Amino acid sequence: MAENQEKRYQLIKVALGEAEADLAIINGSVVNVYTGEVEQASVLIKGDRIAYVGSDTGKAIGPSTQVIDAKGMTLIPGLIDGHTHIDGPCSISEILRYAIAGGTTTIITELSDLGSPLGYEGVIQFLASSQNQPVKIFITVPPMVTLSPVTEEHALTVPQLRRLLRRKDVLGLGEVYWGDVVNGHQRVLDLIAETLRQGKKVEGHSAGASGAKLQAYVSSGISSCHEPISAEEVRERVKLGLFILIREGVVRRELEAISRLKDDDDAINRLAISTDGVAPEQLINDGYMEFVVQKAINLGFKPIRAIQMATVNVARHFAIDDDIGGIAPGKYADIAIIPDLKTIKAEYVISNGRLVARNGQVLVPPREHRYPRSLLHTVNLARDFTADDFAIPAKGRQAKVRLIDQVTNLVTREAFIDMPVTEGQLKADAGKDIIKVAAIERVYGTGRRSTALIRGLGLKKGAAATTDVWDCGDIIVVGTDETDMAQAVNRIKELGGGIVVCAGGNILAEMPFRIAGTISTESVETLADRFDRIQRAAAKLGANSPNFSLTLATLPSPAIPFLRICSSGLFNLKSNRFVDLVVG
Amino acid sequence: MAENQEKRYQLIKVALGEAEADLAIINGSVVNVYTGEVEQASVLIKGDRIAYVGSDTGKAIGPSTQVIDAKGMTLIPGLIDGHTHIDGPCSISEILRYAIAGGTTTIITELSDLGSPLGYEGVIQFLASSQNQPVKIFITVPPMVTLSPVTEEHALTVPQLRRLLRRKDVLGLGEVYWGDVVNGHQRVLDLIAETLRQGKKVEGHSAGASGAKLQAYVSSGISSCHEPISAEEVRERVKLGLFILIREGVVRRELEAISRLKDDDDAINRLAISTDGVAPEQLINDGYMEFVVQKAINLGFKPIRAIQMATVNVARHFAIDDDIGGIAPGKYADIAIIPDLKTIKAEYVISNGRLVARNGQVLVPPREHRYPRSLLHTVNLARDFTADDFAIPAKGRQAKVRLIDQVTNLVTREAFIDMPVTEGQLKADAGKDIIKVAAIERVYGTGRRSTALIRGLGLKKGAAATTDVWDCGDIIVVGTDETDMAQAVNRIKELGGGIVVCAGGNILAEMPFRIAGTISTESVETLADRFDRIQRAAAKLGANSPNFSLTLATLPSPAIPFLRICSSGLFNLKSNRFVDLVVG
Repeated sequence: MAENQEKRYQLIKVALGEAEADLAIINGSVVNVYTGEVEQASVLIKGDRIAYVGSDTGKAIGPSTQVIDAKGMTLIPGLIDGHTHIDGPCSISEILRYAIAGGTTTIITELSDLGSPLGYEGVIQFLASSQNQPVKIFITVPPMVTLSPVTEEHALTVPQLRRLLRRKDVLGLGEVYWGDVVNGHQRVLDLIAETLRQGKKVEGHSAGASGAKLQAYVSSGISSCHEPISAEEVRERVKLGLFILIREGVVRRELEAISRLKDDDDAINRLAISTDGVAPEQLINDGYMEFVVQKAINLGFKPIRAIQMATVNVARHFAIDDDIGGIAPGKYADIAIIPDLKTIKAEYVISNGRLVARNGQVLVPPREHRYPRSLLHTVNLARDFTADDFAIPAKGRQAKVRLIDQVTNLVTREAFIDMPVTEGQLKADAGKDIIKVAAIERVYGTGRRSTALIRGLGLKKGAAATTDVWDCGDIIVVGTDETDMAQAVNRIKELGGGIVVCAGGNILAEMPFRIAGTISTESVETLADRFDRIQRAAAKLGANSPNFSLTLATLPSPAIPFLRICSSGLFNLKSNRFVDLVVG
Repeated sequence: MAENQEKRYQLIKVALGEAEADLAIINGSVVNVYTGEVEQASVLIKGDRIAYVGSDTGKAIGPSTQVIDAKGMTLIPGLIDGHTHIDGPCSISEILRYAIAGGTTTIITELSDLGSPLGYEGVIQFLASSQNQPVKIFITVPPMVTLSPVTEEHALTVPQLRRLLRRKDVLGLGEVYWGDVVNGHQRVLDLIAETLRQGKKVEGHSAGASGAKLQAYVSSGISSCHEPISAEEVRERVKLGLFILIREGVVRRELEAISRLKDDDDAINRLAISTDGVAPEQLINDGYMEFVVQKAINLGFKPIRAIQMATVNVARHFAIDDDIGGIAPGKYADIAIIPDLKTIKAEYVISNGRLVARNGQVLVPPREHRYPRSLLHTVNLARDFTADDFAIPAKGRQAKVRLIDQVTNLVTREAFIDMPVTEGQLKADAGKDIIKVAAIERVYGTGRRSTALIRGLGLKKGAAATTDVWDCGDIIVVGTDETDMAQAVNRIKELGGGIVVCAGGNILAEMPFRIAGTISTESVETLADRFDRIQRAAAKLGANSPNFSLTLATLPSPAIPFLRICSSGLFNLKSNRFVDLVVG
């Protein structure tokens, strides 16, 4: 009998009381996510799966059985984060430390941070890093919707996608921005078609869409959305058959607004709660998925519904509910033991049948992955930058200029102003909160770059640069001063990727992302400290965003409205084309 | 753009009002299975899918758009039968006539009738017959659990299964009997493992199992069961994470018993309603799935729940809910228009975007399939039978004999009696309701056969034979008289398969199953009439089963307790082995 069959047959034997369980959890209250009930029961585990849940366990508990006495505590399925980004900035082993300690046993991650700059190679390398970890990691393949023609040139092809989708740890195509789909983006429609052909999921991203546009988007075969920010947006999407992943993490926090649906069981049936990514500081202060579930309960969701939204519902959405999401025979033994149904604080965490954490202490440390050399050299700039590289030449004495107008810390608009031309150039004007922004292609050594102007960041002096940006392999650098901008970029080059804040020739704060320019090799705690220093340094220079590095990261993204920049220039998302900086 | 992509892009265009719909259904009340609500809305269809559901349809309805005015009637998703057997006795085109007229647009069928006698070839031939039909047909692959060593020898292999599971119209492994799994049936465990490896469903069959045995069965990776006959059995299975298909059809009718769960929304979320096969007479008198949904409503299920149980729930179970199960953008345009939510009587049926039936009249007739010659020659008996072929030799004057004791029309037990030996033989004793039963291998020309004794059928004279049996390729023949038995078998041979009742040298009733010995080429109406004649002829001979041909069909099945017969002899399902007829 092959190994898998033999393992299954051993489950059968244990359930029948004809073989000893490897692990038994006795005297617990087992939450049944299928019925919504709680039952006094023991759980028998053989290998990595559950064999039996009930009270008739005597014969299968023997000398070789490890026994955990739950002492009346509550057993819930290991938590699932159904939509997140763990391909940076924390290394996988670092984020897993927190995930495991808090009772999360499955993570379904997007791969845009690694996939956008590095394409197929980035995906393959992440999958290598997620193998043989103490908990399960699944991915969705990044469609690599990008503004950058360079990234687009290296974007995922249909044959590459086909190969990836054959893997069990690849659940579908990752978040596809709605604008591109509705605009008929050829490659994206091809990727969607291939994914549907293989019967896997196309994850959606319909931020702000409604009415006919939303329906047009959904008609393409999209299965989910994690972008609703109100109960109304949830309802409109559920009506269209979408599955909704409510986001409570670093980008936004929507649980409170969506808690208006706390008694709508029909809607909840199609909801999950997820993080969409967490910052190191959140991991330290709040924890991971246990925080999200606890918050849902605190906001008035019935505890069983909150737990279902983080377990069976998301497993069902991704059609992996035969394997995970509930405590039942045949499922993987992924279990968190919590004090009671309302207190999501794991005292024991079992993953794949192993006790992996106890009282917040990780017992089975995640594997630190060694990335290949290629991923440690992704900042490929031919030479050091100088102030002149950020000059914006212009003719005459005055020019009509198109500005990126930063109206929230994420959303930009387009503004047109008249600016003086000084010595044949347009200069930053920090007094009017207008500074320079540049995007520099850094992965493929093309040397491509563009410089423009941005209003509303608040920076009064200095510069900041980052390789940790959304949806392309550019460095984004902003600054009031071209010399500082050059220093920031040159320091990034030295670091091999990262975030740098500098002013007047001094590096004020920095964070190296040695892996792919997006992943740190440092601890979560060090990262949190570095993020804090970067934020404080930027704030000291005048930056008004509560999350300045996020604001920079989103500048080249097609996911957020509406005037954006990449190494090929300014891009207007409404007109879906590159636009000129100087318009008159 | 490839065809699929282009079709999707046309949906987008229609939703945006930038292209004309092919079909528009206006002025309807649209049932939303995702929210449980009903909405006044129009539906726009392009090609075979829905582009838009809502009120803002003006721009997409143009001169080329066919418009159906629903006049306030109710639109529900096309009904889905999630567990049935349409591989006989009706031909596929005949059963589809009724399915289509009543609003069923998807059928998920087991293939045991064709698969058991013919194996892989039978599956492939059925799949050929189900292509290009006006509605969707999916299959589950028959595991071919059988008592017959001959059938087992030709049973499905793992490589054959692997090939089949790669197809989109193959949803998983068909009903796997629990006893074999729990007993560690090697080939079945291999088939289960291969199915799970490919991420498809293993359909269950846990009739009568409970407690540790049921859990042992479920731990093997089973995803569903369609066998519960009470609310308690449903609850026990839902708790274990199984999906339940409530059966209301030819074999049994459970809806009434299970209607005790009509207000348990958590349970209903994991329930579907299905037929498990319908008799021709039921199709004529009651209809198909529309009857089952109507009955659920009549029994007190909320109409929306009854509809969900026949649409979105079953689609979700089989992970085909991105394509079917609801009226929403991107889904196939499979819609039934009914007078109101409580009256499941389709006035219009749309399938794949085409109007296929109106007021019970089929507008797009199903395709009559031409089977290859091999399927028309599956009764391979080397010669005609004679009375001597059914002799049971015995020694001495009296013998202790093991009887098949037919205690219900499906269930048998084992009985031991003393019988006189006459001229070296055991004879039927119709006065004591003990007659002869024989099983004859008919597909592979092995000549293998066995004869035994059965009590409780009620037959006072004559014989009956059938090729339409469960789980093997045997002819089952019963009779009070060996000469009549021989005539019945010889007539079956002439017909190329079917059911025959005869007595005193006369054929009293017969039904040819020319295709594979299990499928008729006649109309549903003719079939119903023939079944009626067979039942009446058998009853006239004394048969007490309300469905005599079903009783015969189940005699060689391992699915029902517990003493069975196949061409290799008597089989005791409790001890899981062949047993002797004469025991002393």
